[in-house]
Amino acid sequence: MNKKESALILITCPDRQGISAAVTAFLYKNRGNIIDIDQHVDRKASLYFMRVKWDLDGFKLEKDNIKSTFQKEIADRFKMHWELYFTNKKSKMAIFVSSYTHCLYEILACAKARFWNVDIPLIISNHKELKGVAETFGVEFKHIPKTKEDKKEKEKQELKLLKKCKIDFIVLARYMQIFSDDFIKNFPNSIINIHHSFLPAFPGANPYHSAFKKGVKIIGATSHYITKVLDEGPIIEQDIIRVSHRDNVEDLIRKGQDLEKIVLSRAIWYHMNRMIVVHGNRTIVFR
Amino acid sequence: MNKKESALILITCPDRQGISAAVTAFLYKNRGNIIDIDQHVDRKASLYFMRVKWDLDGFKLEKDNIKSTFQKEIADRFKMHWELYFTNKKSKMAIFVSSYTHCLYEILACAKARFWNVDIPLIISNHKELKGVAETFGVEFKHIPKTKEDKKEKEKQELKLLKKCKIDFIVLARYMQIFSDDFIKNFPNSIINIHHSFLPAFPGANPYHSAFKKGVKIIGATSHYITKVLDEGPIIEQDIIRVSHRDNVEDLIRKGQDLEKIVLSRAIWYHMNRMIVVHGNRTIVFR
Amino acid sequence: MNKKESALILITCPDRQGISAAVTAFLYKNRGNIIDIDQHVDRKASLYFMRVKWDLDGFKLEKDNIKSTFQKEIADRFKMHWELYFTNKKSKMAIFVSSYTHCLYEILACAKARFWNVDIPLIISNHKELKGVAETFGVEFKHIPKTKEDKKEKEKQELKLLKKCKIDFIVLARYMQIFSDDFIKNFPNSIINIHHSFLPAFPGANPYHSAFKKGVKIIGATSHYITKVLDEGPIIEQDIIRVSHRDNVEDLIRKGQDLEKIVLSRAIWYHMNRMIVVHGNRTIVFR
Amino acid sequence: MNKKESALILITCPDRQGISAAVTAFLYKNRGNIIDIDQHVDRKASLYFMRVKWDLDGFKLEKDNIKSTFQKEIADRFKMHWELYFTNKKSKMAIFVSSYTHCLYEILACAKARFWNVDIPLIISNHKELKGVAETFGVEFKHIPKTKEDKKEKEKQELKLLKKCKIDFIVLARYMQIFSDDFIKNFPNSIINIHHSFLPAFPGANPYHSAFKKGVKIIGATSHYITKVLDEGPIIEQDIIRVSHRDNVEDLIRKGQDLEKIVLSRAIWYHMNRMIVVHGNRTIVFR
Repeated sequence: MNKKESALILITCPDRQGISAAVTAFLYKNRGNIIDIDQHVDRKASLYFMRVKWDLDGFKLEKDNIKSTFQKEIADRFKMHWELYFTNKKSKMAIFVSSYTHCLYEILACAKARFWNVDIPLIISNHKELKGVAETFGVEFKHIPKTKEDKKEKEKQELKLLKKCKIDFIVLARYMQIFSDDFIKNFPNSIINIHHSFLPAFPGANPYHSAFKKGVKIIGATSHYITKVLDEGPIIEQDIIRVSHRDNVEDLIRKGQDLEKIVLSRAIWYHMNRMIVVHGNRTIVFR
Repeated sequence: MNKKESALILITCPDRQGISAAVTAFLYKNRGNIIDIDQHVDRKASLYFMRVKWDLDGFKLEKDNIKSTFQKEIADRFKMHWELYFTNKKSKMAIFVSSYTHCLYEILACAKARFWNVDIPLIISNHKELKGVAETFGVEFKHIPKTKEDKKEKEKQELKLLKKCKIDFIVLARYMQIFSDDFIKNFPNSIINIHHSFLPAFPGANPYHSAFKKGVKIIGATSHYITKVLDEGPIIEQDIIRVSHRDNVEDLIRKGQDLEKIVLSRAIWYHMNRMIVVHGNRTIVFR
Repeated sequence: MNKKESALILITCPDRQGISAAVTAFLYKNRGNIIDIDQHVDRKASLYFMRVKWDLDGFKLEKDNIKSTFQKEIADRFKMHWELYFTNKKSKMAIFVSSYTHCLYEILACAKARFWNVDIPLIISNHKELKGVAETFGVEFKHIPKTKEDKKEKEKQELKLLKKCKIDFIVLARYMQIFSDDFIKNFPNSIINIHHSFLPAFPGANPYHSAFKKGVKIIGATSHYITKVLDEGPIIEQDIIRVSHRDNVEDLIRKGQDLEKIVLSRAIWYHMNRMIVVHGNRTIVFR
Repeated sequence: MNKKESALILITCPDRQGISAAVTAFLYKNRGNIIDIDQHVDRKASLYFMRVKWDLDGFKLEKDNIKSTFQKEIADRFKMHWELYFTNKKSKMAIFVSSYTHCLYEILACAKARFWNVDIPLIISNHKELKGVAETFGVEFKHIPKTKEDKKEKEKQELKLLKKCKIDFIVLARYMQIFSDDFIKNFPNSIINIHHSFLPAFPGANPYHSAFKKGVKIIGATSHYITKVLDEGPIIEQDIIRVSHRDNVEDLIRKGQDLEKIVLSRAIWYHMNRMIVVHGNRTIVFR
């Protein structure tokens, strides 16, 4: 993996001539060695999207000056909505989980392996069962059960914890609670959910039971950002597996859980590496 | 391929002990050499399904006597719903098509190749464009345009043609018309449709546009039997292909058409080889 | 899952008329309620394969008498090679691992979840790194490093441990050592390996590097039984994932590890549930 | 589809700072509206690859001057190997085929449908069988049988025909003849073959028989450019389908033929739309 520090910019702006030229000229002028560049134009919406990554080694601008300089010289001119990241800065991720283990183990095992560049300081659960798993991996576990009545208050408690741990993004590793809009507002396009169906098929509860009843020949899993509307947020990643009449609901669940964890894990990878731009209800995943 | 003649029985009946034993004993007693045997039990519905195929070479019963003998000795006892087929008898298939060529070419090319065991005496279309394709392959082409007003009458005309050609089953190779219940009743579980989405996602018109709008990362195609309710019949086969933000609606259509023809072609294969049992709104595909 | 106890028979024998009839009649006579029945005939080799599973609840034969009765009444007559299993008896599995964590976590997490019916009393490794993981899951960890010189002796030590723990089958969760023929003889068709390529492409060392060099558009993983010849044993399961020019070797490894663990996990599932019959260098997987 | 004329440049050159900036500045200066831009850097080989497409509508340079201007202002400076294409100019494709129909029908049907932007003036075959198919689609058919002895002479005859028809690239739609190096030299990276296996597994003759014998659980197809070494040319596209013990060699062939045609068809799409850069024995497919 890259040990040298890199910088990365994600851009969304109205499409017009000269954007690519301006950005690449800016980097060239400052001796930025481009590692990766991706762009996409949504012709219908007349929007331009770009992801560019360059070595900081030899770059003429100081890290602290990049933001203001780029804003002044480039971003203002093209009315860009943009963000700057440094790859050496690890993201901080919190996990919310109820009682299924498969996604939790997957995430914690991935985070321990050498590929992921993330810190996981906090696991929050509405159940107690998975405390042991958290401890095993040396992650703080907070048990915060919720009722309809105390939900708002509990969410405040959660937000306080998330703030304290400086959490950048949240992963719902099969968390069986719906968040309030107020909670979601604090993490725009930063709460990643895994839904155990091929959305938009089978939203809501018990998708495997519905899939079985419908007699589909393929089941799926969908990872998406949480928005106000349940199971309607921008889709990040999907995948599928074949099933047959031989598979009962239990088999669908078993096969599906393998999918869920893989699809969630890929979505986290894209998010963690700043490969995603959200535009309306769609994602551009630069991979 | 098998050139020797085989017989094949498809069975549905209430589940109880001894069905497999009775059927296999019947075949053994009559010197039937079993080529293939598949069974499935739906425990919830307490239903038993079986497909068994055997060489007629050396079989002690005359072809004409198999039906009545099996009915008397086995089927009555287990209250079977069952059907008998002989593999040397080619099925007769009619194609309904509007103006897309991809599924039509696929089917006609497959039927010409050595694998398919089917006759296609008739193509019916509500447009004139594909007459040339039909003629190329030596298949009779009937142009039967329909309006809301004359639909019932036109369907009568179609049924007459289908009867005249002794059609066993119908394939809708992207046929943009909805049949009346009266028409469908004449071909129960014998009208195969291809829908250009991963059902139950995106039923109805313009699924590729809806998929694009939704921002899915995978598109699909679904082949199913036509029933009264649009796009709700028993699913025979499904498959998918990955898409990305780079794909516009045109790309989805192009990629999807490859899927459509392959999925439809597989569904026809299963139907043609009597591999499908329908049970409620689900299929058992013995493959 | 089935909590009632079931019995299961796996049969290989020369093909002839009447085998299915005889086996099903035997079960029917003894009031065995068949849950699942699968058969396959290899026409070229003229071999018959069967897997049949039935409820012991209400079965007239005592568990201890099934073996001798079936042998006498059925197996002798058809010259069967066959084995009898009881689903309530958990298999005992040992894991061999070197230093990669992904397959180990996958297996241990699956074994903890509710689906798997297996005991894992022993992990053996030629490295020390994964001791902590083993302890976390409460599994005994034995560190047995090997050199060319002491391999034979170390294998004896391993065999002793395996015997002591009454191990039924071994899983090599990325174990970077080759076993001697003498070792393998002790576990015929019972050592499951995961190879990180789509065999027979890229056998041996560094398949991801070779795949990258070759410029393939898809990479794979293969789970197979270990035999004398390296990477040549009967294939149990394979799967693939797309790659592109954007993926460097590190990316292939990362994507491939997701595959490896899933493919290995499926192979274990088939083995654990006695769904596999090996015939020459091929497997029949009844699923 | 784009009806406006576009221009497209494919670039390979040594990697250094400023290439993207220079190319995009060149287009911007000349009022070129970029439709699509892709780049890739092979860090190991220190090579830079780019594909850029822009509207000619409003572009300040005359079509006839683009080549020399870009060469002088940009290409010389960066030592580029590059090519310029205009999307309104249809490629001319020749098909070589022996006697299988599946790939031929696929290609001809695709070429008739609205998506493909290609002319097919010529089909060459070493057999006579498919003459009728060619005529059906209005394509000239040349029967050129070959023996070991007259191969060189026949290839000269073929080259003459290809030249006369101004053929840009050749598709081998299951053509069972090996070309001489002399022939291949005339169409560098412009002869597209389909091999009926997942290369590098099962090169050479009878891959389906080998796959069956090996007992693989997945079969594949590979489309690649023809080079001197048989089945070793740069891979353009691959795909796979699952098989099981139930599938005999005939089934593998049937399932495989569906794959072959789809994979070949995708490879043609990439080539036709100038999405491919070849680098050593690998392809960069900008899609």
